[in-house]
Amino acid sequence: MSAMKFEYQNPTRLIFGVGTLAQLGKVAKEYGTRALLVTGGGSIKRSGIFDRALKSLSEAGVSIFECAGVEPNPRISSVKRGAATARENHCDLVIALGGGSTMDAAKVMAAAALYDGDPWNMIIHGQPDPYIPTQALPLITVPTLAATGSEMNSGAVISNEETKEKSFVQARCLYPKVALLDPELTASVPKDQTAYGTCDLITHITEGYFNGSGDTPIQDRFAEGVILTAMEYGPKAIANGNDLNARAQLQWAATVALNGWVQSGSGSVGYPVHMIEHTLSAHHDIAHGAGLAIVNPSWMRFAAKTNTPKFVQFATRIFGLTAKGSDDLECALAGIDRFEAFLKSIGCPTHLSEIGIDGQLIETYAKETLRITHDKDGNLSARPPMTEADIVAVLRAAL
Amino acid sequence: MSAMKFEYQNPTRLIFGVGTLAQLGKVAKEYGTRALLVTGGGSIKRSGIFDRALKSLSEAGVSIFECAGVEPNPRISSVKRGAATARENHCDLVIALGGGSTMDAAKVMAAAALYDGDPWNMIIHGQPDPYIPTQALPLITVPTLAATGSEMNSGAVISNEETKEKSFVQARCLYPKVALLDPELTASVPKDQTAYGTCDLITHITEGYFNGSGDTPIQDRFAEGVILTAMEYGPKAIANGNDLNARAQLQWAATVALNGWVQSGSGSVGYPVHMIEHTLSAHHDIAHGAGLAIVNPSWMRFAAKTNTPKFVQFATRIFGLTAKGSDDLECALAGIDRFEAFLKSIGCPTHLSEIGIDGQLIETYAKETLRITHDKDGNLSARPPMTEADIVAVLRAAL
Repeated sequence: MSAMKFEYQNPTRLIFGVGTLAQLGKVAKEYGTRALLVTGGGSIKRSGIFDRALKSLSEAGVSIFECAGVEPNPRISSVKRGAATARENHCDLVIALGGGSTMDAAKVMAAAALYDGDPWNMIIHGQPDPYIPTQALPLITVPTLAATGSEMNSGAVISNEETKEKSFVQARCLYPKVALLDPELTASVPKDQTAYGTCDLITHITEGYFNGSGDTPIQDRFAEGVILTAMEYGPKAIANGNDLNARAQLQWAATVALNGWVQSGSGSVGYPVHMIEHTLSAHHDIAHGAGLAIVNPSWMRFAAKTNTPKFVQFATRIFGLTAKGSDDLECALAGIDRFEAFLKSIGCPTHLSEIGIDGQLIETYAKETLRITHDKDGNLSARPPMTEADIVAVLRAAL
Repeated sequence: MSAMKFEYQNPTRLIFGVGTLAQLGKVAKEYGTRALLVTGGGSIKRSGIFDRALKSLSEAGVSIFECAGVEPNPRISSVKRGAATARENHCDLVIALGGGSTMDAAKVMAAAALYDGDPWNMIIHGQPDPYIPTQALPLITVPTLAATGSEMNSGAVISNEETKEKSFVQARCLYPKVALLDPELTASVPKDQTAYGTCDLITHITEGYFNGSGDTPIQDRFAEGVILTAMEYGPKAIANGNDLNARAQLQWAATVALNGWVQSGSGSVGYPVHMIEHTLSAHHDIAHGAGLAIVNPSWMRFAAKTNTPKFVQFATRIFGLTAKGSDDLECALAGIDRFEAFLKSIGCPTHLSEIGIDGQLIETYAKETLRITHDKDGNLSARPPMTEADIVAVLRAAL
């Protein structure tokens, strides 16, 4: 009897390749003529990407209403601002041109523009009756960073600056109509952000891989393939930002890492590393990928004790280590050491102290993580499920 | 500069798992209430699958109009018969319950029901102006065999019994709305058909893998992962048809082998092994998977001479062989020998003589293959492109 039981559907139309930004206007015109253009910081204006996008849109006859300045760890206040702009200008389309934060905010803006309630109701944060959106303006994502995979999935992570909460929404209507991926747009991403993006995409994979139900050979091979590719091309993209083949492979890796191809059927029960990191970055304005690099190795050492064979598989297939048997914890831990060393080698922090966070609030982080999401027993969904004490221990080990 | 440039969109909703057949009625009701039910031979009636499907549909209030008896290598005459049944009964939905032939025929019926011309116009067969369908009745595929991947893609292969042609149609409107995959339905597939299905799915992978543009590390890993899984679980499913985990892995492998996840971005230029096999099975009523098992190893030996590094990668990653370098033709050929040995071990024929075909018509097969499809230079699209003499040589080597 196979435990593999799942549903999968990803309707997003993917357009991939160097130079495809020039198609943006033509593609956008298929979905609307008055676009809310959501952007983040000023880097896309300095690099000329913004002007090229604008030119393509204007040549196609698409009017633009900009919502600029979406911050890292995008805030619900920015979502409200964008939704208001969309309403005021009768926008019939949303275009996200930026990184994961911009795309996530744009998704929720697209739904909030058609929703009369408070958009924060859509974000799962422990409320008894969250509003799962059922309609949204059509969305086109144009990522300028290879990292979150938000371009081709139905999830978004939003922070509430007042309550210091950071959590997610996932809904069918949030799938972008089109994900337009032009690796050239990621060429100007600085080394540190490239490294964090590499860590982010690998963590998406490891969450599904280690929290899955087991006996999913194809998904395991897919997962390992993405990790190996990210570990090969991430450092190349960091060494030479203009290596467009490295940029392309990294961007493709980031997209498939979270568009469901790798996870579907894996029976993954949760995203514990993400959930813990969200609490950290709700309290401290740290880069999501950097936070993951700190939590993930420590979490792995915790999980390897009960899920040893999967960590042995990781150690042998990713790092070529030799195991004495499938229950060889020593080999499993050696694989995690190698993984942590890789993260360090590309410039990621792997301990809280490196980013100036001490242990004072660790119990608060653990409590808040569980307040935002927990299973019926009050634990964080993961393999194995995590108690508050487990979360505290993982964070302490990461000090 | 990366060569990876492509578009991808697969809108099919996938429902996977042992026991999901019971959901058929409920799911079908979302799309229509008068279903053309397309079936193949009588095995699903003997096994009780047909009755279980009917029960689920009838409980949901979906009326059934059956088009039974779709043959292996499905004929355009069957397509016309099914389309006529759909029209006469004002069907608003098509359900395919069977193997690749049944699903392929059902796809073209779904389009033919809304098309006033001759359905053969849709099948690419060298005509100057093929009709690519733009609308079709909603289709639900329920495969009873793990093989063709037709359940989650937009292609169909149809034969013309009068002209002895066999070729394909591919169109957006042919994507099934739903692919309902219940591995239990494949438990009664006999050993030989299970072996041919395993060969078919592996050949879908090798066609993309060896005819691709190169430098596609993620797609290569995905491809190798599916091959390794099929080589592990195919023999298990052959040894014990009721091993539902093996059946599930094999079915999942068959679906991902041709739903685009593995190929997208690979830059594959053609399906030479399939195109040659189609001509063979247009002349001789052989199982498609058996024909592929004969043509593929011989084609591989031809292609390995010019595309050696990829075949070396195959030999090392799939069979653990050691190469003297990426251009080690000896290692490449040893990998192909191992692959052919695998096909033999699961009971596939690997030479024409084993299925009673002599060399008399080899030049005819080659000419007809090229008449049905060729590139601007008159060659069969592949890496490397194949002249008529190349096709003849590959078939002679497979005698």
